[in-house]
Amino acid sequence: MEKILWQQVQLVKQKSPLVHNITNYVVMNNTANALLAAGASPIMAHAKSEIREMVNISDAVVINIGTLDEYWSESMFIAAETANAIHKPWVLDPVGAGATSFRDQILQQLLEYRPTVIRGNASEIIALAKINTTVTKGVDSTAASNDAVDAAQLLVNQFNNVVCISGETDIILSPDQCFMIRNGHPLMTKVTGLGCSATALTGAFAGCSEDKTSGVAAAMALLGIAGEIAAKESKGPGSLQVNLIDKLYNITEEEFISHLKIDRK
Amino acid sequence: MEKILWQQVQLVKQKSPLVHNITNYVVMNNTANALLAAGASPIMAHAKSEIREMVNISDAVVINIGTLDEYWSESMFIAAETANAIHKPWVLDPVGAGATSFRDQILQQLLEYRPTVIRGNASEIIALAKINTTVTKGVDSTAASNDAVDAAQLLVNQFNNVVCISGETDIILSPDQCFMIRNGHPLMTKVTGLGCSATALTGAFAGCSEDKTSGVAAAMALLGIAGEIAAKESKGPGSLQVNLIDKLYNITEEEFISHLKIDRK
Amino acid sequence: MEKILWQQVQLVKQKSPLVHNITNYVVMNNTANALLAAGASPIMAHAKSEIREMVNISDAVVINIGTLDEYWSESMFIAAETANAIHKPWVLDPVGAGATSFRDQILQQLLEYRPTVIRGNASEIIALAKINTTVTKGVDSTAASNDAVDAAQLLVNQFNNVVCISGETDIILSPDQCFMIRNGHPLMTKVTGLGCSATALTGAFAGCSEDKTSGVAAAMALLGIAGEIAAKESKGPGSLQVNLIDKLYNITEEEFISHLKIDRK
Repeated sequence: MEKILWQQVQLVKQKSPLVHNITNYVVMNNTANALLAAGASPIMAHAKSEIREMVNISDAVVINIGTLDEYWSESMFIAAETANAIHKPWVLDPVGAGATSFRDQILQQLLEYRPTVIRGNASEIIALAKINTTVTKGVDSTAASNDAVDAAQLLVNQFNNVVCISGETDIILSPDQCFMIRNGHPLMTKVTGLGCSATALTGAFAGCSEDKTSGVAAAMALLGIAGEIAAKESKGPGSLQVNLIDKLYNITEEEFISHLKIDRK
Repeated sequence: MEKILWQQVQLVKQKSPLVHNITNYVVMNNTANALLAAGASPIMAHAKSEIREMVNISDAVVINIGTLDEYWSESMFIAAETANAIHKPWVLDPVGAGATSFRDQILQQLLEYRPTVIRGNASEIIALAKINTTVTKGVDSTAASNDAVDAAQLLVNQFNNVVCISGETDIILSPDQCFMIRNGHPLMTKVTGLGCSATALTGAFAGCSEDKTSGVAAAMALLGIAGEIAAKESKGPGSLQVNLIDKLYNITEEEFISHLKIDRK
Repeated sequence: MEKILWQQVQLVKQKSPLVHNITNYVVMNNTANALLAAGASPIMAHAKSEIREMVNISDAVVINIGTLDEYWSESMFIAAETANAIHKPWVLDPVGAGATSFRDQILQQLLEYRPTVIRGNASEIIALAKINTTVTKGVDSTAASNDAVDAAQLLVNQFNNVVCISGETDIILSPDQCFMIRNGHPLMTKVTGLGCSATALTGAFAGCSEDKTSGVAAAMALLGIAGEIAAKESKGPGSLQVNLIDKLYNITEEEFISHLKIDRK
């Protein structure tokens, strides 16, 4: 298993997938740097007039609704619809799901374009499953429980995709696989947007790998391990942000394998 | 006094106030990281469709007009109006006041929603007082002098709020108190957006503390002291930006108290 | 020659030119910090309602289409038109030229306002020359070859300006001069937006110097040398981003002169 995930890490460096991000303003710089450090090629573009062309030339699309507004959400719809239509992998990061009705309404629409991967924290995944059951009346809406794993399972059943609940333990669910990754460091929660970096990395890995589930697991493991090693040399969240990018870039097989804490269920 | 300010610093870490920022693109990442490092929880959101809900769930609102445009200024109006209506503290950072007529016109409108705190540099506070006296014809417009302290006093008289003039000496004025803080380091002026970080931190402190004046003083002292200590270990503005975030996170009571240079007038 | 370039570096620190940037979201923070570190004063502003006033008070304008959209491109047109009309130097960074028809159409329009300096990588300069020859039917369109130097020459002939092709070797062309600079470090390609920093720095130098060609050469040399020195002390792209800003700030004449690799043709 360890070898398979490390191979995925290598694959991104070899293929350098073009990852088209429609993401939030707060994290754009760090997201681009995380993608570059891991070996991918980031594009940030959101103009409605060019979205379709951008999706066409990209290997994967990442949609993160962090600082969405009316215009950007239309761009996101075009990108998601295009990606879905031409079978390009696309990743949804439902930042702040459940916080406002506007967010929930945009997410409801985005779900119609069937994301290849969804990555959020527990409360976002729960909120997303609730949004989804509201739409899909056929599905038993009582199933949208307050348990994130149940919520993730509901989404997997509906979309036949990969759902990642990130947290102290990252849980990656797909129709036939389930991984649990226990890497990372508490100081990572004090750096803004590392969840968004995780999402962008899953995009890069999904853009390279046939096996999306192990690709997402490899992306989450890479970020968790790099963060863990970087945190040990950091005096606070400022230096962690810097050291994490360095480690995404120069991580060795030995570091990756020796730190990886993964369970398969 | 030192103890009271340090208690405010602790209060932010304990309460972790939700600070809703409508701020400029240049500083969003750093602002979010400064808030996280100090113990607060940042939200960045500007969609007109969700502003009211966001203000409702937040403990404080920060409006920074740095990269404003027509859409964003409407969002700012909604946020300021909502905050004022429901008595939620809100902070105004009048970036570039006086530079263009558009900025002045937006600021004039924002002042109608009576900011709880205003933080700017001397020229911005002077420009803001001039904008205000243009509107409030009843007030003697000749009072809008070119002296920043007079200008700040004029704003305090009008809005019964806290005004902070930041600079080599930070001056914090309110109807019944006046603090002068002589912390900070010249290299801080070479890092973009530390003034914006100061504003965001005052938002966090205003969201926690009953006594807004000492809250603003504590926020300014925290940033100044952290910057001062960080500058000593920095080779230039790049490392200062990183070290400052680290120090906001790991500053000790001893460091805070021993560095604080505050006068009460 | 070395002395002349170093004098230009000094000139920016002395004059502290106001550089008005309409640039992309990804790099705004770094661009502002690079300008500050080199001694310039950055403004980021894009509201159509204030663009003309901002251009008027600035010493140079930088337009970077990285994350353009319909609104921002209109702002760019106003800025470029104003700068051209009042003979203010303006720099074009044609990010992603050739990637989408929208980008090419916006660039075609921007070229009508005759940029004082154009800086892009080889493929962007080639794409830009093709866009230009499509418009200017009078010019032999077969001249838009796939060679970047030919493409740059075509643009120089048309606009009587300075064109910089950045890469392992930076080539700076103008009607009567040609410089080749061989500074920089491969790790710089793993930090997002250093090309955008280069463009912003050329804006600062063009805003100070009568001799635009040597100004652009000095800006490119400064960034390349600072990056080269910074890379040696960096563990990866994260620390390079930080160290580069430090070095832009504290570079000495001795470091600049001893590292400079420049040829005149």
